[in-house]
Amino acid sequence: MSDESGTQELGITESKEHNPGEWYAEVVQKAGLADYAPMGGFIVTRPRGYALWERLQDHLDGWFKETGVQNAYFPLFIPESYLEREKDIVEGFDPEVAWVTHGGHDELDERLAVRPTSESIIAPFMAEWVRSYRDLPLRLNQWCSVVRWEATETKPFFRTKEFLWQEGHTAHATGEDAWDETMTRLGQYERLYEEVMAIPGMTGRKPEHDKFPGADTTTTIEALMPDGKSVQAGTSHHLGTSFAEAFDITYTDEDEEERIAHTTSWGLSWRALGALIMTHSDDQGLVIPPKLAPTQVVIVPIWQSDTEDEVKEYAADLAAELDEEFRVELDDRDERNPGFKFNEHELNGVPLRIEIGPNEVDDEEATLVHRPDGESEVADREAITESVQDALDTVYAKLYANAEETLENNIREAHGRGEILGTLGKHGGYVKTGWCGDEACEAEIKDQIAAEIVMLPLEEDYEPVHDTCGVCGEESVETAYFAKSY
Amino acid sequence: MSDESGTQELGITESKEHNPGEWYAEVVQKAGLADYAPMGGFIVTRPRGYALWERLQDHLDGWFKETGVQNAYFPLFIPESYLEREKDIVEGFDPEVAWVTHGGHDELDERLAVRPTSESIIAPFMAEWVRSYRDLPLRLNQWCSVVRWEATETKPFFRTKEFLWQEGHTAHATGEDAWDETMTRLGQYERLYEEVMAIPGMTGRKPEHDKFPGADTTTTIEALMPDGKSVQAGTSHHLGTSFAEAFDITYTDEDEEERIAHTTSWGLSWRALGALIMTHSDDQGLVIPPKLAPTQVVIVPIWQSDTEDEVKEYAADLAAELDEEFRVELDDRDERNPGFKFNEHELNGVPLRIEIGPNEVDDEEATLVHRPDGESEVADREAITESVQDALDTVYAKLYANAEETLENNIREAHGRGEILGTLGKHGGYVKTGWCGDEACEAEIKDQIAAEIVMLPLEEDYEPVHDTCGVCGEESVETAYFAKSY
Repeated sequence: MSDESGTQELGITESKEHNPGEWYAEVVQKAGLADYAPMGGFIVTRPRGYALWERLQDHLDGWFKETGVQNAYFPLFIPESYLEREKDIVEGFDPEVAWVTHGGHDELDERLAVRPTSESIIAPFMAEWVRSYRDLPLRLNQWCSVVRWEATETKPFFRTKEFLWQEGHTAHATGEDAWDETMTRLGQYERLYEEVMAIPGMTGRKPEHDKFPGADTTTTIEALMPDGKSVQAGTSHHLGTSFAEAFDITYTDEDEEERIAHTTSWGLSWRALGALIMTHSDDQGLVIPPKLAPTQVVIVPIWQSDTEDEVKEYAADLAAELDEEFRVELDDRDERNPGFKFNEHELNGVPLRIEIGPNEVDDEEATLVHRPDGESEVADREAITESVQDALDTVYAKLYANAEETLENNIREAHGRGEILGTLGKHGGYVKTGWCGDEACEAEIKDQIAAEIVMLPLEEDYEPVHDTCGVCGEESVETAYFAKSY
Repeated sequence: MSDESGTQELGITESKEHNPGEWYAEVVQKAGLADYAPMGGFIVTRPRGYALWERLQDHLDGWFKETGVQNAYFPLFIPESYLEREKDIVEGFDPEVAWVTHGGHDELDERLAVRPTSESIIAPFMAEWVRSYRDLPLRLNQWCSVVRWEATETKPFFRTKEFLWQEGHTAHATGEDAWDETMTRLGQYERLYEEVMAIPGMTGRKPEHDKFPGADTTTTIEALMPDGKSVQAGTSHHLGTSFAEAFDITYTDEDEEERIAHTTSWGLSWRALGALIMTHSDDQGLVIPPKLAPTQVVIVPIWQSDTEDEVKEYAADLAAELDEEFRVELDDRDERNPGFKFNEHELNGVPLRIEIGPNEVDDEEATLVHRPDGESEVADREAITESVQDALDTVYAKLYANAEETLENNIREAHGRGEILGTLGKHGGYVKTGWCGDEACEAEIKDQIAAEIVMLPLEEDYEPVHDTCGVCGEESVETAYFAKSY
């Protein structure tokens, strides 16, 4: 297979700690994950980046299907008149829509929106397909790209005008069913982050003024990045009856009564890849958990001319055995020395390196080196499959523990404008405070320091962390989590 | 799981033989494969249709990866200036491009083409990524949708303005390598048609005037539909150096000499689904080969009140056992009678039905009914897994044999304008004739009967079937296959 990586000769030169933005861009490019497209705001996802996305898809798609979701595909374009049928949607997305105005040499009668999200083209079909309670729940999902013409700076996977995602759309008989669905999908996003991506997530809901257009409730999973900013890692919306009313999604119940359906939508985009890269990687390059790694184990034989044959044979034999359980690469290139190979596989984020030299051959052993921290251990050749599995589990556990520690150390309480601003300014992370529910109080913080309320707790009856609003001092009705965010 | 099929109450009313167009549209809609979108030329792919596409993808994607292809993702939009860099591409596709002219409320400085095909956005990145012979071959593929603004009538999967496909793009050191690649991919398309879709394909190349814009050679796999028309089922292009020259894809060879690369591209679209549906289905509805069927086996218990418990238990036990090897559905709904269920599963194309009544329970047997022809056989309960596998293999073999017979009976020789037109007019299918190589001779036939040269044989040294051109009588240089086509 081709290497297709002319740009990979040099290692990472930027520091994650001191220049997180430049460091991130360098890791993305030098690990061969993505390149910038000629049009501002667009990227090219290279094979190594796309392979990560495919593995995320496999996990999530499997869980969706196990829980009653069917994949489908709806048109890329949405007629302007359809977009206008739900007023919140058109207000929310109109400023960000890319418009197709011409087909070939002809101007179109009606402009077509390149889908920014597909509620407006899916809902009318739900209305056609749902007749009776027997047709419910209806659970559809599509994997596709969407376009949102935001003017902000491009950050591969985090902020791009076009992005890949999945969007789920469901219809239910009752609001309660729709709420259960909303939470099921949020739970699957959380599971993806925790089990697959080794990132602990915080689940909550967005304030009223920051909900998805038309939604009753927008739930979110937030992940804390090492630079102290929060990433909205996936959202699941309880849409209530707003889309059902706008698009006439009704059903006859068991008593032949006409009822309005309740809908949800939920999406997770390749921003998850951004969070993944940002969370675990380091100044040597990409770090990724074993479940996502295209190559989980790289075997590097180290020989002198007099030991070449035996070392290479031992390594090849080992590779053949491990290949039955893991995604393995044997790197026995003659033209590169071991140091070069180590650097390259570290840059590319291979979770486990196995070094085989004459000593390992003589002692019937193998040296296992963990990518995240360089820790090495010697394993018996005989029980190598178990040892490699243990080592990969340990790599996952280290990554998760590290991210969890960062999260736990960066949730702080604060009360009073000065304390909130000071804490956010000094440490980043999340600041918990009481909130009166007024958007103006958020705006005050936002104007000063570009931090906003990223999350409110989900539990229905909980005590706010403070009796009074951390900003205005009026009575508190919520606990708000302030953070800067991507 | 939801049934999501309010439109499925009635069976097929049109006749495949007498009204193939209406019959096809009815099967697509009533089997829940696709619906028409509100914009002319676009369709919605429903879950049952998308599930077929996912299975096609799985097969082809697996073969691609086994043979060195890496998936990637390139932007949906191509700047107009990029499209213009290869002159044949812009001439070939300009009349069919959907143009994005506005992002949000602003007019764009440069129009963006919604990708009609991606050579023009992929080639410049190949130029960046390929430096030396070590970077070759470079083999990329993406699964995506493309838009071509054709004004013809919409036919789901066959002709739609937006369609799903895969497009492979490769670069090689030599023209010979690029040719081998072209043929490898054509071979994989042929394998997909034959092994998975049970459709025999004919492979060949397109005449000069019908090549892909910029290609040296366009190879094609053609499949004959029961209505006598040919479907271009997949194409694989040897692009020579035209794109490499336009986009500067060069490499240094082993002697440090600068060389131009040779590229290919190859694509297969959801037209394959159209061919699949059209070839095997009948007046009862959808027929699909077992490898593609979302449900391969449906078990229908048939009981009276006094036998209900034993029949249902026997059927459930059978379902549990078969579920380990096959995709099985147990249809033990109380509210539907067996006849209704038979019709529904026939409409949806389940390849094998197993009927379980009191007799089957008493005799420890099962009755297996083949979807394509209704043939039934009795199998011992004890060896049921083997019997079901044999029956599914038989279903595949029947479908393939049927399609092969149609193909073999519909390749005819003809010579002379009148004979060619008469044969095509009376029988459809392929007409083989000598050809002088002049497009004007094709045009004469095309003007009369809308048939064209769909294929020329691939072999490099073959004797034309006639010494003289079947149309003009001049010396023949090729054997041309004329057919009407989708």
